[in-house]
Amino acid sequence: MKWKCLNCGFEVDASVEYYWKCPRCSSPLILDYESTCEIVESKNVWERYRGFIPFKPGKYRGEGLTPLVEEKIGEHRVLFKLDYLNPGGSFKDRGTALAIAYGYKLGFKKTLVDTSGNTGISVTLYSKLYGLEPIIVMPTTAPQGKKKAVLKLGGRLVEAESRATATQLVTRFMSEPGVYYVGHIWNHLYPIGHATIAYEVFEEQGVPDVVIVPVGSGGLLLGVHYGFKKLKECGLINRMPRIIGVQGYSCQPVYRELYGTEEKGEESNLADGILVPNPPRTREIVEAVKSTSGEVVLVGNTEITRAHSELWEQGFLVEPTSAATYAGYKKIMNKIPSGSKTLIVLTGSGLKTL
Amino acid sequence: MKWKCLNCGFEVDASVEYYWKCPRCSSPLILDYESTCEIVESKNVWERYRGFIPFKPGKYRGEGLTPLVEEKIGEHRVLFKLDYLNPGGSFKDRGTALAIAYGYKLGFKKTLVDTSGNTGISVTLYSKLYGLEPIIVMPTTAPQGKKKAVLKLGGRLVEAESRATATQLVTRFMSEPGVYYVGHIWNHLYPIGHATIAYEVFEEQGVPDVVIVPVGSGGLLLGVHYGFKKLKECGLINRMPRIIGVQGYSCQPVYRELYGTEEKGEESNLADGILVPNPPRTREIVEAVKSTSGEVVLVGNTEITRAHSELWEQGFLVEPTSAATYAGYKKIMNKIPSGSKTLIVLTGSGLKTL
Repeated sequence: MKWKCLNCGFEVDASVEYYWKCPRCSSPLILDYESTCEIVESKNVWERYRGFIPFKPGKYRGEGLTPLVEEKIGEHRVLFKLDYLNPGGSFKDRGTALAIAYGYKLGFKKTLVDTSGNTGISVTLYSKLYGLEPIIVMPTTAPQGKKKAVLKLGGRLVEAESRATATQLVTRFMSEPGVYYVGHIWNHLYPIGHATIAYEVFEEQGVPDVVIVPVGSGGLLLGVHYGFKKLKECGLINRMPRIIGVQGYSCQPVYRELYGTEEKGEESNLADGILVPNPPRTREIVEAVKSTSGEVVLVGNTEITRAHSELWEQGFLVEPTSAATYAGYKKIMNKIPSGSKTLIVLTGSGLKTL
Repeated sequence: MKWKCLNCGFEVDASVEYYWKCPRCSSPLILDYESTCEIVESKNVWERYRGFIPFKPGKYRGEGLTPLVEEKIGEHRVLFKLDYLNPGGSFKDRGTALAIAYGYKLGFKKTLVDTSGNTGISVTLYSKLYGLEPIIVMPTTAPQGKKKAVLKLGGRLVEAESRATATQLVTRFMSEPGVYYVGHIWNHLYPIGHATIAYEVFEEQGVPDVVIVPVGSGGLLLGVHYGFKKLKECGLINRMPRIIGVQGYSCQPVYRELYGTEEKGEESNLADGILVPNPPRTREIVEAVKSTSGEVVLVGNTEITRAHSELWEQGFLVEPTSAATYAGYKKIMNKIPSGSKTLIVLTGSGLKTL
């Protein structure tokens, strides 16, 4: 198990040392490890997909193996993955469960993360499980419910003016002794954890034709891509789904990188979970989208609000960021061939933001 | 499939007629139906346990098959059933999914229920799925989050002064044409739905030695009892778990019926989900507890608050009513033999009540 820099070639034994980015060239690192490609019968996601992940976390809180609900929308078969039914209320738990287990094994005593909210809940939850002290830096603009959840879980909440200043503020705490900067937008254990979504969908429904996910830091998009790629490398599937990312008009770094331009449109601040201005893995995200003939779609608040209401009335109690994904689907559904199987990942619980 | 009154012998074909209580003697009815006892491999709870339920609902929203997390507490093996990870945020979805599917098949156009909150969310969610109009009567004292969720799902919310006046108020709407009084505290489809918890636990862990559940209307206790009894009748298990119910000092009708006296203690209004003054199935509940050598435990707000904090810090984001159950466990844990396997059902999401 090694941390590797694909940019400059730096590498280090990951069972001994952790760097949240390459110490030579500041690029994001990837985790390289052996896979057996074996799926075993278990209700514990980490036992079930042990053959696809680098190690099995010591603690389990019911993360993963979330429901998949199929609906016919027009001529499409749409698969809704209810990942907001994870124990911390979002898909982030999949990545966090791995990332915190790793930090614990390396002997860290405190965890640190800058987040728009959901990762804060998730990191606090799993840190406390391992007896680690969580420090959560969150923008004041984050929904009250997300802040309250962090405090109730026993996390130390530090508020920053915006998502961007949260990222700056976090460096202050990095020098404290024993601090593990979880850095979910850098840490490759997040995509590796999120990849379990692909394994679960594959077991129930094979390969979808299209996968639609929200793109903030891109950890989910990269995770789903990683998962299907791994299944292909293992010889379990022979094609990749088209991967489509959804961003808001207010914050479109991946769209800009992909198409070389920004598109003007309505504000999209309702989807607070995808307001990440400079995702460090932007190049990888663009590569994943391009290599699967995917695209990036932009949405604004009106579309998000409408999609949000529709999802609730269909019985999906999600937060607005998840609705952005559905809004993105509706925007491009006419371009998806009829009979296609489209996976929509519903990422965060709306109960937190009532 | 027949509705039957165990008190006066009244019975009627349930595929044609519905009575929420016996039209002759006002007792609760039970639903009698054929079971094949067959479990089939499926991620859809209704397909999986079709051999144990009266019919398969037409709609599915990811209810059931929730995670089971095992923890060692002292010398006990404790199994936490994370039923707050159901799509509507509580175990009620299991019963509601069956109950609303049934009302829809019978041709009703509106649904009606009086509830402390969780059932309101659940009934609204499934009613909208089938295109039925939900009327939800809830006490003003119910948590704001639960009311907001009902409204956001598109339910018609009617507020009553208390849980008891909600039950009175509901009769006003019963005469409206096409109204299905779901009456979850009467409707036997609720225990039948909740029984799937027993089937799931059985598949993963066999029969627990002890099962601890909160008791409001008693639908969960009766459901778990029904489920294990059914497994025994099917020849899949050969013993029953001891069933222990938890009530609050402020509202102890089952305790009173079981022991012939009330016990004085601190207020317990934090556990709003179990403030049901006169559960119609009290006699059945007492019978279930007695026949399994179980008991009823009382708890108050201080114990609930402490248990609530402990559960959150263990990563279980539940509401106070669920914490009452854990408080009940802690109160009697010294009486449970070491090495025992104890099932604790965690019933409702705490994200709604942040």
